[in-house]
Amino acid sequence: MSDKAAVLVAGSWGTALASVLADKKMDVMVWTRNAAQRDEINDLHRNERFLPGVELPPHLRATTDMKEAVEGAKAVVIVAPSSAVREVARSLKPHWTEDMLIVHATKGFETESLKRISTVIAEELGCEEGRIVVLSGPSHAEEVVKRCPTTVVVASLDESQASAAQDLFMNSYFRVYTNRDLVGVELAGALKNIIALGAGMSDGLGYGDNAKAALLTRGLAEITRIGVEMGANPLTFAGLAGIGDLVVTATSRHSRNWRAGYLLGEGKSLEEVLGSMGMVVEGIRTTKAAHTISEKYQVQMPIAKQLFHVLFEGMDPRTAVEALMGRDRKTEMEVMSLETWEQWHT
Amino acid sequence: MSDKAAVLVAGSWGTALASVLADKKMDVMVWTRNAAQRDEINDLHRNERFLPGVELPPHLRATTDMKEAVEGAKAVVIVAPSSAVREVARSLKPHWTEDMLIVHATKGFETESLKRISTVIAEELGCEEGRIVVLSGPSHAEEVVKRCPTTVVVASLDESQASAAQDLFMNSYFRVYTNRDLVGVELAGALKNIIALGAGMSDGLGYGDNAKAALLTRGLAEITRIGVEMGANPLTFAGLAGIGDLVVTATSRHSRNWRAGYLLGEGKSLEEVLGSMGMVVEGIRTTKAAHTISEKYQVQMPIAKQLFHVLFEGMDPRTAVEALMGRDRKTEMEVMSLETWEQWHT
Repeated sequence: MSDKAAVLVAGSWGTALASVLADKKMDVMVWTRNAAQRDEINDLHRNERFLPGVELPPHLRATTDMKEAVEGAKAVVIVAPSSAVREVARSLKPHWTEDMLIVHATKGFETESLKRISTVIAEELGCEEGRIVVLSGPSHAEEVVKRCPTTVVVASLDESQASAAQDLFMNSYFRVYTNRDLVGVELAGALKNIIALGAGMSDGLGYGDNAKAALLTRGLAEITRIGVEMGANPLTFAGLAGIGDLVVTATSRHSRNWRAGYLLGEGKSLEEVLGSMGMVVEGIRTTKAAHTISEKYQVQMPIAKQLFHVLFEGMDPRTAVEALMGRDRKTEMEVMSLETWEQWHT
Repeated sequence: MSDKAAVLVAGSWGTALASVLADKKMDVMVWTRNAAQRDEINDLHRNERFLPGVELPPHLRATTDMKEAVEGAKAVVIVAPSSAVREVARSLKPHWTEDMLIVHATKGFETESLKRISTVIAEELGCEEGRIVVLSGPSHAEEVVKRCPTTVVVASLDESQASAAQDLFMNSYFRVYTNRDLVGVELAGALKNIIALGAGMSDGLGYGDNAKAALLTRGLAEITRIGVEMGANPLTFAGLAGIGDLVVTATSRHSRNWRAGYLLGEGKSLEEVLGSMGMVVEGIRTTKAAHTISEKYQVQMPIAKQLFHVLFEGMDPRTAVEALMGRDRKTEMEVMSLETWEQWHT
């Protein structure tokens, strides 16, 4: 009998990761609360709302029964929206056993508590945070299900868990690197969505590729700075979970965060944007979280701040982007905050 | 009378920088060897081969006479192809005076000697290298002439020269930062073209955005590593001249280096690609230079090496990209070379 893996829940990225595992001949069960979605996956091998036009492997199956999904699984992969992770982990708890590998691929924070996702899962399962692995990196689901070459990073406080996750996912088109910096990988994956929103907004305003590149450069410095304050290794932000994911999220037509920013830049309201997307846009929640984090850690986050004004206080996007372009800076090293880098390395 | 500036020569980037200076109400003279191009600029206010469809400011004038171009100029901006810089500097020498600000915006090396461009210019003028300023960053000429918001960096061994260049160019849509790391800014600008070629090749092969993001991430680590060996500050590669310019060169339809790579990925030969471009593709020369540099400094440059095989040894692009994807790496930090970063900062 093949090894079994469970994936919670059946959004686009969850379904794509499930199909990677199915390609490794695993017995994969996707858990969803939606009976119609379950039937669509089991009977038609499709998940049209999240991955339109894609045919899923026939041995990728779905269920609405958590016990059926998880029982006997060697690994459980949690890919719920950040707002639903706690509840999903709580539903998992009665069926969870100590020997299960727990991987999550959710990019965000718990909004109210500002906790990282691995913390939330560990709390609900009542285990050490070292038991949790995060998977992140530049990986559009739409390309992964087409078996386009993709590289990701897995990180855990416990190296043996990260190695197990590497073995679980690695195949010919899906390359998995390990990294010890759980905090950095989680923060980079969450915070980069803010910058991708900003890049989309710049594009929606018609500012061009030069302006977007400047925004990405300064945005990377901004999220590295706050990440370091929160305990991350700055080098993680120079890797797949940082630069890699930022580039793909800010420049690809597949990206929801970029698209939401683009529509805002075109003058749509937040309500109109959310209505037209039909999927969760994590960057919007993360901008709210970053606003609070920036105050708590007393670190300036100029891009996140301007986006907060646009998203939640009705500021005109043009005013926000112009405020960013116009900030009075003289030397580039100020922007990059040499001090924090040096501090971290000495 | 307005201040005068000279720009040598009238390619797309030279013409765009000349138009920035013209927008500052300077008296701008562009020098070209081509009499037809001179007449087109003077009579029609156009430079169709390099900036199709763009109307240039009427007080931007052209000449084929170096003396006329340079005499009385407060600043001279050299924007020749890397292969022509020495000769252009040599032609400038008889008309050059000590009080002229010398800025260059050429991204490459002198192919045979592997010298940086500022070294070549200083040698020909017979001055200290500290007199030379480099201007670099994410700045497609096509967007600058449309006055799209753009940010660049200027660097010099002599801070007062960099500040003078900042004052020369800075305007409402063209923001100029200073950086002390002349070597890093020159190396980043030159070496990033190799990675942009590789990104184009990946796109031409249809590998998708995930693969391209991975290539950019590893490419940035690769050029940072060699840059540090050659005396650059690694932080410069995290700034506008590094990440910023890499992103814009590797993801924009305006980029010649990306486009040349794309055509190679589609299966065209180097001769066909060069024939169809009609403009210099610096990344091709720089790949040859990097091959030699990599051997001289004993630093591995896996992406540059595979591109060298494709460009000059007839390797199939698919084989090259697959060799890159398939390299056996276990942890992400190996790829990023933590050691060199730490070495630099302690």
